[in-house]
Amino acid sequence: MKRTVFFISDRTGITAEMLGQSLLSQFEEADFEKISLPFIDNEKKALEAKQKIDRAAEQGEAQPIVFDTIVTPEIRKVIMESKGLVFDFFHTFIGPLEDALGLKSGFRVGKTHSYDEKGQYDSRIDAVNFALNNDDGATTRYYDKAELILVGVSRCGKTPTSLYMAMQFGIQVANYPFTEEDMEDLKLPPMLKKYKHKLFGLTIKPHRLHEIRTERRANSQYASLKQCQIEVREVEALMRKEKIPYISTTSKSIEEIATKIMIKSGLKRISF
Amino acid sequence: MKRTVFFISDRTGITAEMLGQSLLSQFEEADFEKISLPFIDNEKKALEAKQKIDRAAEQGEAQPIVFDTIVTPEIRKVIMESKGLVFDFFHTFIGPLEDALGLKSGFRVGKTHSYDEKGQYDSRIDAVNFALNNDDGATTRYYDKAELILVGVSRCGKTPTSLYMAMQFGIQVANYPFTEEDMEDLKLPPMLKKYKHKLFGLTIKPHRLHEIRTERRANSQYASLKQCQIEVREVEALMRKEKIPYISTTSKSIEEIATKIMIKSGLKRISF
Repeated sequence: MKRTVFFISDRTGITAEMLGQSLLSQFEEADFEKISLPFIDNEKKALEAKQKIDRAAEQGEAQPIVFDTIVTPEIRKVIMESKGLVFDFFHTFIGPLEDALGLKSGFRVGKTHSYDEKGQYDSRIDAVNFALNNDDGATTRYYDKAELILVGVSRCGKTPTSLYMAMQFGIQVANYPFTEEDMEDLKLPPMLKKYKHKLFGLTIKPHRLHEIRTERRANSQYASLKQCQIEVREVEALMRKEKIPYISTTSKSIEEIATKIMIKSGLKRISF
Repeated sequence: MKRTVFFISDRTGITAEMLGQSLLSQFEEADFEKISLPFIDNEKKALEAKQKIDRAAEQGEAQPIVFDTIVTPEIRKVIMESKGLVFDFFHTFIGPLEDALGLKSGFRVGKTHSYDEKGQYDSRIDAVNFALNNDDGATTRYYDKAELILVGVSRCGKTPTSLYMAMQFGIQVANYPFTEEDMEDLKLPPMLKKYKHKLFGLTIKPHRLHEIRTERRANSQYASLKQCQIEVREVEALMRKEKIPYISTTSKSIEEIATKIMIKSGLKRISF
């Protein structure tokens, strides 16, 4: 039985999607069709959204489910009158939170990730630019400004992790690769030694690395299982010897890798 | 009165942070100290988290607030016994959702963004790599594989937007800049014409562009308000003439820009 699920918000809807998705993922056997309706920020759009829900209710096999994070009471009212089963992520908690704080909610839309917090917004963009300019050992000139320098073999996940940490946490992350050529006699390069307290290692299982590199350059020396085994072994030995903290990226999502690094390194994110 | 707020999860805690932050942002006058405790995935860690909450309760001026998305019932139980006021984002809804679906929750941790969904994970990483390889007009060779090509003046937000869309939605986005040199007689370059249906424009207010460029290259022709005005005017005229859809990035967060593009372009994200 297929069931339509709506994610509705007066902003981007990303929070509604994330929590809703984490709830739905508990029901593996169910079959959902997911529809996102972001920026439902006036009554006209709310009525259109209500119509979509009602139509799904009339045509579908089961009552549609609605996950919403709508802040504005008037817009929420329209959605509540739909034929969907509404799970209201925002209003469920805002009343109890008002009681706990002894304060009234401003019911202001879009205070999170908002441009109002200009300082925060700019530092996230700055951090993305920093990650791009200091990617893959392109330059080591700005390592004094880095909050973290990721090291590891080619294709172990350094670049996506740096970018995610920049975007989500506003952290300035550089990354530096240990390459095939370094493997003969792997040592910590002098310019990294200087910033040893900022180093954090990523590692990966040789088999997985072999898979990833094969997609990129099939049948190359670079992608061979043997080469992957050598590089991973050498780099892990170096990190242990130099007492560089490291984690494995195998079987982890970017979100998990980034969050684990935040904990292990003790880095503080920009105010959130 | 300062109040400690904990974000607790058996995974990354990013969902708890996002919803919690959106609730807290409604109380501008309140003063919060925010602490994230991700990966609380066994009873020992749960007891340590409980101790931290209890200590904050004893030392602080007000009862701590706890936002959590803990899936495992045993771990949740420990946190519920703390001296914090617990807002349980997951369990509040999972019961009603079980009733609605007529199914039992698996109480499985970490099904969202999990590596289990390998196809999805790989396509997000692939999309990040695509965005990096096709950034800033570096090459136009792979535009046949792009789902979207962002166009606009230098520093209007193309790169962070491409990367965010890749990371969050798994969309393959290239981007192409219109530069100072193009302005004399601005036309759509032939290789872009071929992919006109994939083009999406970003624009920005000249004053804001001037600010951003000044931070980069103060007192340059490139950063001058006059140059910014010319470029924005020319590029907007071109986009109107060629009927390329476009939005302004001024006063918008990356999340908002990316979500608005998704709506306007009708692009479908990878399954989420």
